[in-house]
Amino acid sequence: MQTPKKIAIVGSGLVGSLLAIYLRKAGHTVHIYDRSPDIRQIQFSGRSINLAMSNRGWKALDAVGVGDDVRTIAIPMDKRAIHLVDKLNFQNYGQEGESIYSISRGSLNRKMIDLAENAGAEFFFEHKIWDVTLDDATLHIGETERGAWEDKKYDMVFGADGAFSRIRHRMQRQNMFNYSQEFLNMGYKELNIPANADASHKLDKNSFHIWPRGEYMLIALPNLDGSFTCTLFMPFEGENSFAFLTDRKLVEEFFEKNLPDTIDVIPKLAEDFFKNPTSTLVTMKCFPWTYHDKVALIGDACHAIVPFYGQGMNAGFEDISVLYEMIEKYGDDWKTIFSEYEKSRKPNADAIAELSYRNFMEMSSKTADEKFLLQKKIEKSFSDKYPEKWIPLYSRVTFSDRPYAEALAIGDYQNAIMEEVVRMENIESIWDSKEVENKILSLLE
Amino acid sequence: MQTPKKIAIVGSGLVGSLLAIYLRKAGHTVHIYDRSPDIRQIQFSGRSINLAMSNRGWKALDAVGVGDDVRTIAIPMDKRAIHLVDKLNFQNYGQEGESIYSISRGSLNRKMIDLAENAGAEFFFEHKIWDVTLDDATLHIGETERGAWEDKKYDMVFGADGAFSRIRHRMQRQNMFNYSQEFLNMGYKELNIPANADASHKLDKNSFHIWPRGEYMLIALPNLDGSFTCTLFMPFEGENSFAFLTDRKLVEEFFEKNLPDTIDVIPKLAEDFFKNPTSTLVTMKCFPWTYHDKVALIGDACHAIVPFYGQGMNAGFEDISVLYEMIEKYGDDWKTIFSEYEKSRKPNADAIAELSYRNFMEMSSKTADEKFLLQKKIEKSFSDKYPEKWIPLYSRVTFSDRPYAEALAIGDYQNAIMEEVVRMENIESIWDSKEVENKILSLLE
Repeated sequence: MQTPKKIAIVGSGLVGSLLAIYLRKAGHTVHIYDRSPDIRQIQFSGRSINLAMSNRGWKALDAVGVGDDVRTIAIPMDKRAIHLVDKLNFQNYGQEGESIYSISRGSLNRKMIDLAENAGAEFFFEHKIWDVTLDDATLHIGETERGAWEDKKYDMVFGADGAFSRIRHRMQRQNMFNYSQEFLNMGYKELNIPANADASHKLDKNSFHIWPRGEYMLIALPNLDGSFTCTLFMPFEGENSFAFLTDRKLVEEFFEKNLPDTIDVIPKLAEDFFKNPTSTLVTMKCFPWTYHDKVALIGDACHAIVPFYGQGMNAGFEDISVLYEMIEKYGDDWKTIFSEYEKSRKPNADAIAELSYRNFMEMSSKTADEKFLLQKKIEKSFSDKYPEKWIPLYSRVTFSDRPYAEALAIGDYQNAIMEEVVRMENIESIWDSKEVENKILSLLE
Repeated sequence: MQTPKKIAIVGSGLVGSLLAIYLRKAGHTVHIYDRSPDIRQIQFSGRSINLAMSNRGWKALDAVGVGDDVRTIAIPMDKRAIHLVDKLNFQNYGQEGESIYSISRGSLNRKMIDLAENAGAEFFFEHKIWDVTLDDATLHIGETERGAWEDKKYDMVFGADGAFSRIRHRMQRQNMFNYSQEFLNMGYKELNIPANADASHKLDKNSFHIWPRGEYMLIALPNLDGSFTCTLFMPFEGENSFAFLTDRKLVEEFFEKNLPDTIDVIPKLAEDFFKNPTSTLVTMKCFPWTYHDKVALIGDACHAIVPFYGQGMNAGFEDISVLYEMIEKYGDDWKTIFSEYEKSRKPNADAIAELSYRNFMEMSSKTADEKFLLQKKIEKSFSDKYPEKWIPLYSRVTFSDRPYAEALAIGDYQNAIMEEVVRMENIESIWDSKEVENKILSLLE
């Protein structure tokens, strides 16, 4: 047990709530601030992407005993269902029994807040934090940025306030603070596949559904109530773009032509298309993440990534696991806890940012490419036989807790090998042969 | 002549003042705001690096008829004087008659403000701009960030307020604004070589002096009064670093050992070392640079670079040349003027950022490397003979107004060729031969 501190967490999202549970467990007083109303009292926004919980997320939840609570609202997905214009392919994510888990962001957030409250954390909703004084961990709270502020001093402040963090905003204005934010030229829009009348799912429930179309794609993830939350990723400008889809007729024609098997399952297509906002996608990097032993950033507030690897929440939860590891190692030495935490996490945050950025290409184009699917089959076959020699990149990221930076490096190495393998003569017919196996073994040496 | 507008420029530095002259010429009312006192009334800061004016800078000055005014305070430097520990080498910058020009930042800034005032621009010093309303180009001015503000509405606002621009700060908080700031792990400190008693220079007056020492370096640029402004660039941490030089004795020993020929010419070494601040070096990139036809960033406010190519001011002045080109082309269509301006400048700003970053290595290490000096000799010899086939990178950046992006691309191409050439057998003895010339000609084909 550490010396109890009075700690403020800014942001009541997934990372903020889980961090609160960890800090309560370590014996601290925890106040969580959020500028928004209590998400348990309101309708959700129509701009979310379903979460895909995987190994790193579960590990962080299970370590404080809340994994099983969350499992009650999760649906396993053990494969991709790849919807080509004229056929449907399936591709397993991992070994038998390995799945990622679809969870609606709203449901999970509500549950996490309940769990944090049960653990003794105190929530202050509709409290807007405009600034923080770094030297003494004082929050400045008020109705408006230019209006009167109330000051609340803590022993420590965590910024878990997401990609547009106010806490980071203050740190950014210091000398030697490295920072970047880069938006994709692509946005996303939520759509919906409702449940059947009997509350069953209209598409295979245990699949992550993808409609890969090159520069744009649609995905669908299952919900408990039989519906699917769909997300359309598409460029803002150009031929197949949000700018082009300006009225009901254009939207309906576009889906009929390019996504024909969605027509029957998305009944309120045009309505939702124009009702739901088009959201942006940003990669944000920064360093340092902490200020002395007073202030630390965590989750999206210090490493916002694009959603194409389904690792945003998992990476944020892993921040908490690593922070807690440092707490167990360094006790009350918060200066060392913070500096070891940021040192350990930064290269891994950069790596998952890169992997996530690259994965749009894999999802939207390569899943429709026969050569790529063959490569995945060869990898799987070899990995089944030599699991100690070859963990596929996706598995290392999703089903292990090996560092993301290691996954990125080994993934690049494996990819160079596979590029040679798929160039072998008649690879389509010999892919499962001893010859290919020996080729990979020799390249691995 | 355009329809006259009421225009505010934030920042009375070099770019702000020159922009004011251009906008006055085009018939506009121009108000310039600066948070600092009038630089003409105060002592300078002890943290400047002398400027090296080159072709792009002169072009922008001459086009509004103020080049000759500035020439009165400029000293031509036609070569590098390279101070090795045991000898002194010289390396010409360009062709006969080609020079860069040393100017003290303070003197130039004072002169530019005088010139802008003479042109009819009105200056408001000690006016702190805290925010801008982008939609109607309204400045918010006040003593403190949280105190009372006065609003001043303009037709247009230019942010010429440097790397930590408040105008950009507001633009940054918009969606889809890309931004990065990256600090070097190296800082700089101003030192001084005073004039001789007869006001003559202690070192060659028409040289840019460099003491290349690998991970750190010292430079010295001449002033009109016979002194030199020196700048020590050095890592913050590590073996040869600012962190290591903690007292007078260590500083003096360090200079005696590593920079022996400076001992006699820098009399107040330790005093200045501890009196002058250690400053940081940042590369800042962003996009977009403009907001509708209301707000535009210019100079360091949209592209701050490290100083190792001596192009920071030149690039800022070239922004003004390009903006004016667009004004002449598009008349009163400010929306198009702004969008063509940012589209034209952005790739070139990125290119000079990259070239500047790389040039530290050239200055601090390669100038001490015989192989590199040989390569420069070969390039010069070939370029003298075939000026239309080979303009060296440094000349293209410094003595031409070809786009920086072109310089970067062609420079990389030339470098690949030179890497082959210096690998030729006996290159040290045959470097000036027909054989080498033919080799380059064949590689260029």
